Amino acid sequence: MVTVTLVGCGGTQPLPERALSALAVTAGGGSVLIDCGEGTQAACRRHGVNLFRLDAVLLTHYHGDHIFGLPGLWQTMAGMGRTAPLLIAGPPGLDRVLRAFLAVAGPLPFALQPLETARCRGSFAAGAFTVTAFPLKHRVGCCGYALALPRAGKFDPERARAAGVPLALWSRLQNGESVAGYTPDLVLGPPRRGLKIVYAADTRPCTALEQAAQDADLLCMDATYADDADAPKAKLYGHSTCRQAGTLAAAAGVRRLWLTHYSAAVTQTGEDTPGLGAARAAFPAAEGGFDGKRIELFFDPDPE
Amino acid sequence: MVTVTLVGCGGTQPLPERALSALAVTAGGGSVLIDCGEGTQAACRRHGVNLFRLDAVLLTHYHGDHIFGLPGLWQTMAGMGRTAPLLIAGPPGLDRVLRAFLAVAGPLPFALQPLETARCRGSFAAGAFTVTAFPLKHRVGCCGYALALPRAGKFDPERARAAGVPLALWSRLQNGESVAGYTPDLVLGPPRRGLKIVYAADTRPCTALEQAAQDADLLCMDATYADDADAPKAKLYGHSTCRQAGTLAAAAGVRRLWLTHYSAAVTQTGEDTPGLGAARAAFPAAEGGFDGKRIELFFDPDPE
Repeated sequence: MVTVTLVGCGGTQPLPERALSALAVTAGGGSVLIDCGEGTQAACRRHGVNLFRLDAVLLTHYHGDHIFGLPGLWQTMAGMGRTAPLLIAGPPGLDRVLRAFLAVAGPLPFALQPLETARCRGSFAAGAFTVTAFPLKHRVGCCGYALALPRAGKFDPERARAAGVPLALWSRLQNGESVAGYTPDLVLGPPRRGLKIVYAADTRPCTALEQAAQDADLLCMDATYADDADAPKAKLYGHSTCRQAGTLAAAAGVRRLWLTHYSAAVTQTGEDTPGLGAARAAFPAAEGGFDGKRIELFFDPDPE
Repeated sequence: MVTVTLVGCGGTQPLPERALSALAVTAGGGSVLIDCGEGTQAACRRHGVNLFRLDAVLLTHYHGDHIFGLPGLWQTMAGMGRTAPLLIAGPPGLDRVLRAFLAVAGPLPFALQPLETARCRGSFAAGAFTVTAFPLKHRVGCCGYALALPRAGKFDPERARAAGVPLALWSRLQNGESVAGYTPDLVLGPPRRGLKIVYAADTRPCTALEQAAQDADLLCMDATYADDADAPKAKLYGHSTCRQAGTLAAAAGVRRLWLTHYSAAVTQTGEDTPGLGAARAAFPAAEGGFDGKRIELFFDPDPE
């Protein structure tokens, strides 16, 4: 199971009643946090995201509304007694950002493990997930992230017997261990569909995103503007309208779409998001993000 | 009139329902903000403090809970179209802090005017106020600030006539202008009691604070711990208990005391602050601070 929490849904400035856009994706007892603006740590606490159990922070880019919460998060983790290293990934420029924040945060009782993605391309492990970065279209270098929770094939006793695997080893092989020269594939059917969560803010609609979001269980995407008339502004500033998010979600064949990173001019969120109708015209399952929006995603049931 | 707003009352970490300790003091249409932790800008908006009209930010010291909101505040001011310079005062080390935050905030459309107070001593103008810095007792160099709104003497027509001041000049002289060789003191009685607001967190009780707070209209002071039993911890970490704040307020002869900078272990604020009884045992007028606590202070009425 994966729990996804939209920690905040706002763009640019933290508002009294709206935290900056950030997503926490939780599986196997740990979480990956995408972006950390001013107020993200308090919003995580408000919405039940365990800050002590963060495996990684993925930064999309280095505009203030996505990073200014980092040093405070670190100090809170330090206060909680964290000693485990913290993976921090981001596009080129990460080193400069971390150096500046470390200069004001002072020494920490845990190590930061920076991972700079060259041109926002590459895959790496973060907690329970395999993360794939991909380049978005914003005013500055900006990464989207696809978080995949892979799923092994179904246990197949017929196959195990046919391969002559001793019964005593079945359970360990089923759990992914290789034992005594036997490998898990000898007792498992073909890998099954896992879960994929894709986060894409800040961005204009673009091919790399459409490809990365193919068949995703959830796409959480930039929907800065509600009104179609703001499309030129969206293009200029490297953002999307709600309708554009819906159109991209439909083209990518995702299962769910959450709108996020609303401009302050978008005064309502959730079901009342003004652009939700436009998004739904293209993608009927679109949902308006709101602070604390949460879903639990499960693997597909096996066919009978 | 001076309006004082306790923007937040928490220490160390921003909590979902408690902003970090910061004070906004407003007069003549502008405000001085003391400290700017993560979330201070959103708390200012929540409590009606106009961010566009900040004349100065005074930093008490450079622990994260007092400064991590600075770059976000700057960017929000930039978004509002600010071009007026912003005074930023603080103890030695200010330059290093500003450099680090500027590295992540990027160029701003207004100038920062840094003012480093050598050993937390000195006076300077900030908006409508005369600010006097004084050294507190914390684990690191830490300034307290006394904000004074001075008040001229009462207009005295007898005095003006006796000095032979032409009637046509009275009003300009009364407003503080010097005209044609005549000075305001020729038409005014002796200066009257103004208003004084003193902010002191983070600190142990100390003589410099007791002296600076003499006769203040309002002292807003570190009251990290509610329980007297925590006095050794308060001493160790450079903080005060509620009772110690009350005792100092009584010794300084202040008119009002607000408790602030509560530890997260102090679960109630305002009238329900657990240490309020202890503070009142020493200083009956003590009040428990809470986010958004506000008062309007007026000059004393002239005697009949």
